[in-house]
Amino acid sequence: MRFIPALRSRWASANTLLCVGLDPDPAKLPAHLPREDALFGFCRAIVDATADYACAFKPQIAYFAAQRGEDVLEELIDYIHNAHPGIPVVLDAKRGDIGSTAELYAREAFERYRADAVTVNPFLGRDSVQPFLDHADKGVIVLCRTSNAGGSELQFLDSQEGPVYLQIARRVAEQWNTHGNCGLVVGATFPHELAHVRALVGDLPLLVPGIGAQGGGIDATVKAGEGTETAGLMISSSRAILYARTDAEFADAARHAARATRDAINSARRRP
Amino acid sequence: MRFIPALRSRWASANTLLCVGLDPDPAKLPAHLPREDALFGFCRAIVDATADYACAFKPQIAYFAAQRGEDVLEELIDYIHNAHPGIPVVLDAKRGDIGSTAELYAREAFERYRADAVTVNPFLGRDSVQPFLDHADKGVIVLCRTSNAGGSELQFLDSQEGPVYLQIARRVAEQWNTHGNCGLVVGATFPHELAHVRALVGDLPLLVPGIGAQGGGIDATVKAGEGTETAGLMISSSRAILYARTDAEFADAARHAARATRDAINSARRRP
Repeated sequence: MRFIPALRSRWASANTLLCVGLDPDPAKLPAHLPREDALFGFCRAIVDATADYACAFKPQIAYFAAQRGEDVLEELIDYIHNAHPGIPVVLDAKRGDIGSTAELYAREAFERYRADAVTVNPFLGRDSVQPFLDHADKGVIVLCRTSNAGGSELQFLDSQEGPVYLQIARRVAEQWNTHGNCGLVVGATFPHELAHVRALVGDLPLLVPGIGAQGGGIDATVKAGEGTETAGLMISSSRAILYARTDAEFADAARHAARATRDAINSARRRP
Repeated sequence: MRFIPALRSRWASANTLLCVGLDPDPAKLPAHLPREDALFGFCRAIVDATADYACAFKPQIAYFAAQRGEDVLEELIDYIHNAHPGIPVVLDAKRGDIGSTAELYAREAFERYRADAVTVNPFLGRDSVQPFLDHADKGVIVLCRTSNAGGSELQFLDSQEGPVYLQIARRVAEQWNTHGNCGLVVGATFPHELAHVRALVGDLPLLVPGIGAQGGGIDATVKAGEGTETAGLMISSSRAILYARTDAEFADAARHAARATRDAINSARRRP
């Protein structure tokens, strides 16, 4: 699977821009799930319940690492590939390190976990991202303007050539994207800045966290971020879907929440 | 163990500023080690051979993660705490994510791995680092000016208030360090900038990678980075020590390399 073509194909065939985030918080897992299988069982049920409405799945590696669940994460991504072929998996890892170490992180994401794309942190510059970029069939989604309040602290510093986040957008679109496998992370909490990024980067795919629990509005996000020719957006929601209910009906509730979010996104699109 | 006092105590009692980096590259492990125990056996031998000359050990998590070695990393840090009490362990993970996820990364570093300090990426701002800072007894070592060439791309962007890396140094020293548990990563490859950082941050501990294999000079590093009252530096070397030899004599060779590096550092100090 080549990530960007698979994503475009999924946008079109499933008519959805919703990216389902898999952030399994141990404190919130439904109590009725057998304890020894709760982490995998929960994630598999969410995946099966929401797959019809997902353009991508985005497991957040910290949730697995904090509970010694690396083997569960491997198993989960395998499961998605087998049970739902054609839905790409974005490993949300936000890695960033010097070249020799970055090569190992790329191996971790793409070989060990078999992710189709990974999020990376641009703070160490292009040579730190190059080992990921060299996997031309994989997606490399670079942090640009994050959804948290503190993101402004560095990302909004203004240099002679404009704020840091726009310099990242420009560099990724114009210089780092030689294999055509890049995307950017731009939070839904800043639709004005999302529009600035979109204006700079053409149809580059944007991963947009921050709707739902973090408070970003869907209408403003879609209007600010939609691409010109293709859909262009992976609008990510995690907690509002995963924990729509935490009893035995959690999977049905997640399915309803995913469908409602997909529909709300599509209602805001110029070409649903 | 409180990280900063433990580090100061170790600087004084062992008279060393050398931080031994544990980056066990599977392609470089001595061939004679039994395959099923090579990763742990190699690291343990390096730790025992170099402990006399180490102010800290710094395992790089990517090397373990890329070879499904999380359990080995847990075991290794346990081993260091038990066999060499008083030598702090810095987990080199360079994590950076929004608050709720950062809490899980903090749990991973401090509870799962029992590290005494962790490296973090400041790109997402203070709220992303706060969950680490809240562990007041643990060290939080923030990337400032990294040792790779590409580091200049963002870290050297010049805003109205000066280059990005100096703004990070200032914010960490003046605002983020409320618990007195912060440090900064500043590469040895840029001694001029290391001096600028030192001038801004008083005696804040600096973790300095980039000597040895990456080419930074020890004399220039020590002269630029030494603190005013205390030692102030963890000068990190990994490959030049770990792979001094790769045959049955690797541990002895590592010990000699560590001692020679410790001595070279001390020769450059104002108060060895």
